[in-house]
Amino acid sequence: MLVKGKPLVAVVSAGLSKFGKMEGFTGRELFIEAVGDALQRCPDINLRKDVKAVFVGMMSESFEHQGHIAPMLADWAGLLPAPAIRTEVACASSAAALRMGIFSILSGLYDVVLVGGLEKMTKRSTLEATEFLGMAADFPFEQWTGVTFPGLYALMATAHMHRYGTTEEQMGLVAVKNHHNGALNPKAHLQREVTLDKVLNSRMIAYPLKLYDCSLISDGASCAILTRPDIAGKYTDKPVYIIGSGQGSDSLALSQRDDLTSLRAARYAAREAYEMAGIKPRDIDVAEVHDCFTIAEIIAYEDLGFCKRGEGGRFIEDGTPMLDGELPINTSGGLKSKGHPVGATGVAQIYEVFLQLTGQAGKRQVEGCDIGLTHNVGGSGATCFVHILKGG
Amino acid sequence: MLVKGKPLVAVVSAGLSKFGKMEGFTGRELFIEAVGDALQRCPDINLRKDVKAVFVGMMSESFEHQGHIAPMLADWAGLLPAPAIRTEVACASSAAALRMGIFSILSGLYDVVLVGGLEKMTKRSTLEATEFLGMAADFPFEQWTGVTFPGLYALMATAHMHRYGTTEEQMGLVAVKNHHNGALNPKAHLQREVTLDKVLNSRMIAYPLKLYDCSLISDGASCAILTRPDIAGKYTDKPVYIIGSGQGSDSLALSQRDDLTSLRAARYAAREAYEMAGIKPRDIDVAEVHDCFTIAEIIAYEDLGFCKRGEGGRFIEDGTPMLDGELPINTSGGLKSKGHPVGATGVAQIYEVFLQLTGQAGKRQVEGCDIGLTHNVGGSGATCFVHILKGG
Repeated sequence: MLVKGKPLVAVVSAGLSKFGKMEGFTGRELFIEAVGDALQRCPDINLRKDVKAVFVGMMSESFEHQGHIAPMLADWAGLLPAPAIRTEVACASSAAALRMGIFSILSGLYDVVLVGGLEKMTKRSTLEATEFLGMAADFPFEQWTGVTFPGLYALMATAHMHRYGTTEEQMGLVAVKNHHNGALNPKAHLQREVTLDKVLNSRMIAYPLKLYDCSLISDGASCAILTRPDIAGKYTDKPVYIIGSGQGSDSLALSQRDDLTSLRAARYAAREAYEMAGIKPRDIDVAEVHDCFTIAEIIAYEDLGFCKRGEGGRFIEDGTPMLDGELPINTSGGLKSKGHPVGATGVAQIYEVFLQLTGQAGKRQVEGCDIGLTHNVGGSGATCFVHILKGG
Repeated sequence: MLVKGKPLVAVVSAGLSKFGKMEGFTGRELFIEAVGDALQRCPDINLRKDVKAVFVGMMSESFEHQGHIAPMLADWAGLLPAPAIRTEVACASSAAALRMGIFSILSGLYDVVLVGGLEKMTKRSTLEATEFLGMAADFPFEQWTGVTFPGLYALMATAHMHRYGTTEEQMGLVAVKNHHNGALNPKAHLQREVTLDKVLNSRMIAYPLKLYDCSLISDGASCAILTRPDIAGKYTDKPVYIIGSGQGSDSLALSQRDDLTSLRAARYAAREAYEMAGIKPRDIDVAEVHDCFTIAEIIAYEDLGFCKRGEGGRFIEDGTPMLDGELPINTSGGLKSKGHPVGATGVAQIYEVFLQLTGQAGKRQVEGCDIGLTHNVGGSGATCFVHILKGG
């Protein structure tokens, strides 16, 4: 049962498949890779015996012509007869699985559950992928007009530029930072640095967003093993605790929102998570935020309270979210460089923060970090989850 | 927190849209109709103020080219900023939403949540509907061969006939019973009786399943409002309590199962639900079971312990599950006659049992019923939920 200020659950392990264009691998195989990775970090767990339920996020059945994935993944990962449920809230599908996993443990029914997500996107053409992703926008009010996600985020970007003077260069710096971090992450899709010049001169997709302002279409899977806090010690000496979980919803169509420069769902989720954890934005040491487009990361800085409204552009210019800055953000490379297999992303953020808080992040390790945050957005912001984690 | 033998949650209201070929209505409009129906039964609730979260089941984004439905439905039903999550486990998607709603209340985070489901299927051709439904089968191992759900259940039917001597007439009696009940349900898709002769002489779909052995492709939506048991009295004088919730999973592909004549996931879910509720199959007064095909209802009788393995055919022949029998089953008309908008079905079963236990079932009312059961299957049985409800 939920008691404010107490850990909700422990994360005793987490796993990630390689992200990228994983030719020859189906989604289920990538999921097994992620589960295997989690198992290797936590050899004391007996998956089939200990894991009581499975919650997995996936955005679209259309990519692999495969729905009903939850029992299939439980089966292929050797977890049957554990009951399994899929959650879907667009690009935030696996953060939803995480929240369901947390609820299920707090309910008292389960003591150990596996949460995760996957998306196998690259086998289809870019046109098909754009269409399938587009289904997360409102059909009669948005899809019907032909607008796709780069177009929707372009509207948010121009609104932010107009109101606050945010610049294309500031957005470009987000890409430069995240590619720098991704180059240090052996599981990232694109492990290479980019210069600001390269970002600014890349092909225009939807003004002001250029190719390097957009995240990647990737294949990948993620998972995390959650337990009741009091039994985490059975499985690991270095548990991480989830101390806050927040979720907000908003209208699907941008035209129905009060404001294009901020996500109400994100502010709502952040407030819930901070209050539950009993901490403030300034207490966060490291964060993974939803940089599906560079403008989305700038808006996230503001929605999460890392800076004031309208100051997100200066926040990146000042270097605060750099790997060696005061509050490193997207140390994994983010959706921009690590990749964005949409259903996997939410729990992939948990994976990165788990690595950081347990000192397993290799060349991108942030020293002395104790509290981490994840921020996972669905669609153009109708859904947002914020989770706060603390080292053991 | 879960305490065995105590009510998990209260159902203070439930609502259903008309089921059928609802031309001119989108899925979101049908959902609003269901929510309005629930509201009208529970005028003391203030939806926007009281409902803290929404969990909705839908099987396929493909029917309406619309994913990310959870915040959209919360928005259209006037429930924002309540956070919303979609669950998907094929035809059991809204039973999953119900279970998530139960977990979320038991977690202590929420005191009132709305659960529901929807599917808008009839705007697409039967061929397209068959393809979209087929995505719930295993792609490389089943879909690839061209088999669809009537074919998969036909394999289960012939296995049951071979092993136990179950007859086409016995399966046909399930259709006759459910159409009899559906004719008494003003929200049913097909409100007409059929004779055994008509069932047996209907067009062959996949031997031995004929047209009248198959459930309907329908549009529809369902919802239920759940509260903590101790506050149910604020909203209604006649709450119904959920006293057991069970879920099981199994391999997606039939070829990977031990047995074609019984669903392991259903037996697992039933055992969990009965144990949690502290009751036996003989205590059940009324039940809604997943009759996607007539053979599925016969197998359900056995998996739920209403009769012994292999005796499902005789169970219907003896009249036990008839409306005036000892254990009326599918008083709503079931998927066969009420219709099967797949994502709506699980909570639509809850709606029917809620009506029965509160004396609101009109011409199909079962007198003196106190304990009801719902059984909702995903796909060919890789997922099953069983819920047990008790009158207040």
